[in-house]
Amino acid sequence: MSAADQFDGVSVVKKANVYFDGKCVSHTVQFADGTRKSVGVILPSSLTFNTGAPEIMEVIDGRCRVKLAGATAAVEYVAGQSFNVPGNSSFDIETLDTLHYVCHFG
Amino acid sequence: MSAADQFDGVSVVKKANVYFDGKCVSHTVQFADGTRKSVGVILPSSLTFNTGAPEIMEVIDGRCRVKLAGATAAVEYVAGQSFNVPGNSSFDIETLDTLHYVCHFG
Repeated sequence: MSAADQFDGVSVVKKANVYFDGKCVSHTVQFADGTRKSVGVILPSSLTFNTGAPEIMEVIDGRCRVKLAGATAAVEYVAGQSFNVPGNSSFDIETLDTLHYVCHFG
Repeated sequence: MSAADQFDGVSVVKKANVYFDGKCVSHTVQFADGTRKSVGVILPSSLTFNTGAPEIMEVIDGRCRVKLAGATAAVEYVAGQSFNVPGNSSFDIETLDTLHYVCHFG
């Protein structure tokens, strides 16, 4: 498996983060430099997430339609693409397939 | 967070393993010595898992009732407990709460 497919030299928290009755499940990954990301899945659903810190959502597999707070239209993102979410904001996300993502915290 | 709560110095695969329409979601963790574990969640459900390699299922949080193939009765396991599953076998698992687990492969 290549470096693009995995994070190396990290810590992973054993207990998952479970949101929306399990429609979103993620595990927290800690990096040596103190940064933190999460690797997760969103099952097919339409959900609204609130942000504290700014975040970058990177789509690893699947696709989604995302409408940021204040945006007039949703935008579709597929594997290899990312979108930025400001802090103290929210976004609506519709997942058509199971979405695999990495969330990078700002 | 203490060493008991996380794995350090590992690689984590970004894309999850999704089973049973998302009732089970796990991420693969690779260790420097070549061993492999997974950290995962089973949402409240009754499922049957088949094993290839032998595995040890360690309950991190939640509880479950497990009946190994050939067993006459189910046994309940809670956080801090583990059960062994032989290779090329199966087990029935009923999760009453969301189950957080680590699966250790033999």
